[in-house]
Amino acid sequence: MRPSGRQPDQTRDIKITKNYTKHAEGSVLVEFGDTKVICTATVENGVPRFLRGEDQGWVTAEYGMLPRATGTRNQREAARGKQGGRTLEIQRLIGRSLRAAVDLKKMPDISITIDCDVIQADGGTRTASITGGFVAMADAINSLLAKGQLKNNPILHKVAAISVGVYEGVPVVDLDYDEDSKAETDMNVVMTDQDGFIEVQGTAEAAPFSSAELTAMLDLAGKGIRQLFVAQEEVLQS
Amino acid sequence: MRPSGRQPDQTRDIKITKNYTKHAEGSVLVEFGDTKVICTATVENGVPRFLRGEDQGWVTAEYGMLPRATGTRNQREAARGKQGGRTLEIQRLIGRSLRAAVDLKKMPDISITIDCDVIQADGGTRTASITGGFVAMADAINSLLAKGQLKNNPILHKVAAISVGVYEGVPVVDLDYDEDSKAETDMNVVMTDQDGFIEVQGTAEAAPFSSAELTAMLDLAGKGIRQLFVAQEEVLQS
Amino acid sequence: MRPSGRQPDQTRDIKITKNYTKHAEGSVLVEFGDTKVICTATVENGVPRFLRGEDQGWVTAEYGMLPRATGTRNQREAARGKQGGRTLEIQRLIGRSLRAAVDLKKMPDISITIDCDVIQADGGTRTASITGGFVAMADAINSLLAKGQLKNNPILHKVAAISVGVYEGVPVVDLDYDEDSKAETDMNVVMTDQDGFIEVQGTAEAAPFSSAELTAMLDLAGKGIRQLFVAQEEVLQS
Amino acid sequence: MRPSGRQPDQTRDIKITKNYTKHAEGSVLVEFGDTKVICTATVENGVPRFLRGEDQGWVTAEYGMLPRATGTRNQREAARGKQGGRTLEIQRLIGRSLRAAVDLKKMPDISITIDCDVIQADGGTRTASITGGFVAMADAINSLLAKGQLKNNPILHKVAAISVGVYEGVPVVDLDYDEDSKAETDMNVVMTDQDGFIEVQGTAEAAPFSSAELTAMLDLAGKGIRQLFVAQEEVLQS
Amino acid sequence: MRPSGRQPDQTRDIKITKNYTKHAEGSVLVEFGDTKVICTATVENGVPRFLRGEDQGWVTAEYGMLPRATGTRNQREAARGKQGGRTLEIQRLIGRSLRAAVDLKKMPDISITIDCDVIQADGGTRTASITGGFVAMADAINSLLAKGQLKNNPILHKVAAISVGVYEGVPVVDLDYDEDSKAETDMNVVMTDQDGFIEVQGTAEAAPFSSAELTAMLDLAGKGIRQLFVAQEEVLQS
Amino acid sequence: MRPSGRQPDQTRDIKITKNYTKHAEGSVLVEFGDTKVICTATVENGVPRFLRGEDQGWVTAEYGMLPRATGTRNQREAARGKQGGRTLEIQRLIGRSLRAAVDLKKMPDISITIDCDVIQADGGTRTASITGGFVAMADAINSLLAKGQLKNNPILHKVAAISVGVYEGVPVVDLDYDEDSKAETDMNVVMTDQDGFIEVQGTAEAAPFSSAELTAMLDLAGKGIRQLFVAQEEVLQS
Repeated sequence: MRPSGRQPDQTRDIKITKNYTKHAEGSVLVEFGDTKVICTATVENGVPRFLRGEDQGWVTAEYGMLPRATGTRNQREAARGKQGGRTLEIQRLIGRSLRAAVDLKKMPDISITIDCDVIQADGGTRTASITGGFVAMADAINSLLAKGQLKNNPILHKVAAISVGVYEGVPVVDLDYDEDSKAETDMNVVMTDQDGFIEVQGTAEAAPFSSAELTAMLDLAGKGIRQLFVAQEEVLQS
Repeated sequence: MRPSGRQPDQTRDIKITKNYTKHAEGSVLVEFGDTKVICTATVENGVPRFLRGEDQGWVTAEYGMLPRATGTRNQREAARGKQGGRTLEIQRLIGRSLRAAVDLKKMPDISITIDCDVIQADGGTRTASITGGFVAMADAINSLLAKGQLKNNPILHKVAAISVGVYEGVPVVDLDYDEDSKAETDMNVVMTDQDGFIEVQGTAEAAPFSSAELTAMLDLAGKGIRQLFVAQEEVLQS
Repeated sequence: MRPSGRQPDQTRDIKITKNYTKHAEGSVLVEFGDTKVICTATVENGVPRFLRGEDQGWVTAEYGMLPRATGTRNQREAARGKQGGRTLEIQRLIGRSLRAAVDLKKMPDISITIDCDVIQADGGTRTASITGGFVAMADAINSLLAKGQLKNNPILHKVAAISVGVYEGVPVVDLDYDEDSKAETDMNVVMTDQDGFIEVQGTAEAAPFSSAELTAMLDLAGKGIRQLFVAQEEVLQS
Repeated sequence: MRPSGRQPDQTRDIKITKNYTKHAEGSVLVEFGDTKVICTATVENGVPRFLRGEDQGWVTAEYGMLPRATGTRNQREAARGKQGGRTLEIQRLIGRSLRAAVDLKKMPDISITIDCDVIQADGGTRTASITGGFVAMADAINSLLAKGQLKNNPILHKVAAISVGVYEGVPVVDLDYDEDSKAETDMNVVMTDQDGFIEVQGTAEAAPFSSAELTAMLDLAGKGIRQLFVAQEEVLQS
Repeated sequence: MRPSGRQPDQTRDIKITKNYTKHAEGSVLVEFGDTKVICTATVENGVPRFLRGEDQGWVTAEYGMLPRATGTRNQREAARGKQGGRTLEIQRLIGRSLRAAVDLKKMPDISITIDCDVIQADGGTRTASITGGFVAMADAINSLLAKGQLKNNPILHKVAAISVGVYEGVPVVDLDYDEDSKAETDMNVVMTDQDGFIEVQGTAEAAPFSSAELTAMLDLAGKGIRQLFVAQEEVLQS
Repeated sequence: MRPSGRQPDQTRDIKITKNYTKHAEGSVLVEFGDTKVICTATVENGVPRFLRGEDQGWVTAEYGMLPRATGTRNQREAARGKQGGRTLEIQRLIGRSLRAAVDLKKMPDISITIDCDVIQADGGTRTASITGGFVAMADAINSLLAKGQLKNNPILHKVAAISVGVYEGVPVVDLDYDEDSKAETDMNVVMTDQDGFIEVQGTAEAAPFSSAELTAMLDLAGKGIRQLFVAQEEVLQS
């Protein structure tokens, strides 16, 4: 039995709200149950130095948590003077995942920065960030297309992410914090809406996992992610 | 004529929402028009090193803005590796203002940290933070009183803040970004609900201001702040 | 009775020495009683990046204290790896105050940096820095005019600053450390020699202050600052 | 055809040298072809603050590359003033992988730090670090057992790691830099010598990967890792 | 001919002023011609962590330059966020030199910090700092002896320092900036008043130096330093 | 008797290995007994900003130690977030010494960075770094000459370094860690193969040293360094 009473293959309520704040070119509040992340997309002309002269654009991401997004307060990273290893790891993952969704050659001299800021955490903040970040990015790209600043749509496919794990011996999808902190295995899966894998990151927390468990988790992930694509499509169409 | 069409003595719509996020001992969303700040209060046992053995508690504040809370993206302070001077100045102001609301001797060995994070900025983020931060702190203190962790209520009086300024020669209250960026003078006023001043910070932006203008601005501030105390009381009673 | 035996409206001995060190374009030692600050003005060609192409100049300030300028040693900020919030707040105030003294349009492509380094502290270091910093800046500008590097004098008016406060219930001017550390209210006032206010920063330290106290403090400040303009004029004429 | 002429399932020459430097409790040079990493294990009494009173030990890892371990020089991280995101990500992976190899309860109040420093890089530095780091840790633990500082062997199983990927459409094992920089997919796999997975981290570099490719890569990884366990055993027995 | 018209063995005017600022336990202004350094000695109870339980005291030094102590402005190290290599090198030299002047065993649980801050630079700031720093330290120690906080005088001998160099082929003493920036060789010599060497640091700037030049420079240094001991004695007796 | 049983004028076994790693333009492993340092030379086009337009090249050095190069583990400088004073001092010494070996005017627009990384420390790491760093630099320069990227050989003379000291009252050469940590005096000497001094840095550790001891140490250093030139020549010719 899961702490939340959910079935093993049952995700939490997923909610994606567009135009959540007013300044950004794309702005989304994404909720995976009690996990709430603000994802904004900022469009800027120009590309980072290492891409000058490459005739392509760039997509990058940054991630942060409000100090009291969690049960106990975490020191503010700006006050500590650096982003922690976990933060850097997550924002690198979000950036890679969203870059995999676009053809950078089709957005020359355009940079998009996705900021994912967790205002309330309950497990799965990185998967919610990728899922919501895609919508913020797509929304910003749609504006650029509408205004003629982009000629061709650089989006190759949708990208979304979900967590899976083994909890008390049973593979489950979309772990909340209670499950996540006790799970034997924790895996984050990023996929395209054409069933391709973008990232698979599985970690044995309490015990090594078997090939069979890996397969079961990947199946659950695929099933869960397909629900996310529906939610993304609905909000993008709205 | 103000860009927003407001009267000189008219504040924006003020909205304070309690229990905005679920983990913190006090959690408030405060809105001054389009300026939106999440204020959380975290209660911890113990006091900073410089107060050890002083038989009192402590209240402090931290402030941040999401990178895209504003019209153009600001670099994330955690990524830059330090908080800017403006940020430090604001969080010092919030901390002093909220400490002035309590008798620290009545909360021995208790520290309260108020985190003010701006998710959307449109002028007046520091005054919104003080006004909302007071509610988050009061809410946390009420819980401590209810649970018997505090014997006596340390709150001395309510504290709230509002901005005033001189815009096109006319003293006005609660400036939004459009006004703030063009005002000749900008002043932030922090007061108690017993008409006492906690902080007065006036800055000539475009031209020196006169004694008469100062008096007019302080009158407007007092009038505006009294509305804030009503809003604070309503949400605290709810 | 004030600890120093001064009358409420009596400032400390004010002394401003020009050409205090030999390398800087302007170099001043300013003394407000036992508070001693070296203020140097450095003239450089060019402006910061954010002003490129704006056809104006720039004035900025930096502030520091020698580690043992005070009764107990403070950690050296260079060794700590960052300037503290108090330091940043003070140098921002000095910079704003001195920029308010000039028409930046009349000093195109010229940057002046005012360094204020406290070698001995006894209260009022920020007001001494503004008052002495103005002289260092004016001295540097006079050289630029004499050498023909500036065509028109960018100085609009003199600027000086003094502290006022409420000490044992009595409004007093130019607080030394003994008073400052016990005052109920502390206020720094920056004015022009045409009676305009540039900055008013009042803080309730021990108790809120009333409108009447505020008025009394501002009157004292105006009277004290007029003495500073005389001292500035004398040294600039010498 | 692989650039090196190797078969898809053929690893590079693997060489593990014990007692490579003289000071550390465990010291190993691990070579995966031209990739060379010095792994040292340092044993210290005591545990980090967050484990005080938990009656267990700790294992952690740090990772670095000499600035010219690669084809072009990378800025020295100590000179830059921080470890990059890639470095932090890798050292977190090494630490998790090696902690999974031991029962921390069986090494109370003992901390082991594994330093992995790459002196020459040619792809696969993180997998070489895990594989060599395990030997350094095991060597240090064997000394502690021999000296009676540990009563029971905390090692649960061997741990080793290898990279796999899809290169020009073909799944291959143990990618060198030439392959790695062009591979469509890159995956790092950490396993126990009982066929359990510790970490699986797959990333689509140029194109999403399919479930079939994932399975093929995991098979190759298992086969390659089994060779690593033989090499580890040989050097530990010597 | 030296730029200053001095003889090769002629030092600049040396001036040491005691009680220069009022807060520190020892406070000295030392002048070697136009080089002016404030040296303060701070006495604190306790020793650094690495000396706990060692039954001895500690002496350390810190060094800084005001940004405009030199002909062109140097960036403030506190603003840059770190002390430069030159600064660290100099303060390590000052600390070693002053520790060599005392028997740390005779000042148990007492730490003395010497802050050397250059307010005007014209060559030789490190030698002036050592020479003035010794007087500040001795003054602070004399107070501790007078107050009975030290039982035995820990001072073993006086310590002072001077620079020597080869300028246009001629060995000279106490180089000012004009000479220093063009000298073929630059050497700093720290000695005791019993003719012992504490530090000898010679650097070929433009050309290697010979054994004969080294000997000539050391002779000049010894002669110059003996004048410094006279100046130190005079001010300590005053 | 020296702890190692060596004669006072006897160096440790000196071994210099060329082409130690494969990527760098020059790569050397230098061994002074158990002290082992990897020295790589990286050639880059362009010069640092302060040399732009000066029609010359540049040589600089960086130094580091693996955390467990020593008997107890040192915190990794990259993790601490800064290089320590000792590290900066050493790398500045190496850089100055190697720049003294070349005519920078003969290598226009070429920068060479020498990285010296200590993989095992037993005293004398800075002298080994200079001695090995020269070979790495010379090797890189020889390649540039062979490829025609340099027209004229910028090398003026060989440079090497050795430590000398006074141990139990006897001047000795090339101190290992056991001697170094107990020596009364420690001196590092850098010379050219034409008997010129580049750097002489002598420090009294336990007691001041005399002029006679200084002379004896310099004689020993000269004798020892001549052996190093033979070793450098052999490996460069090979």
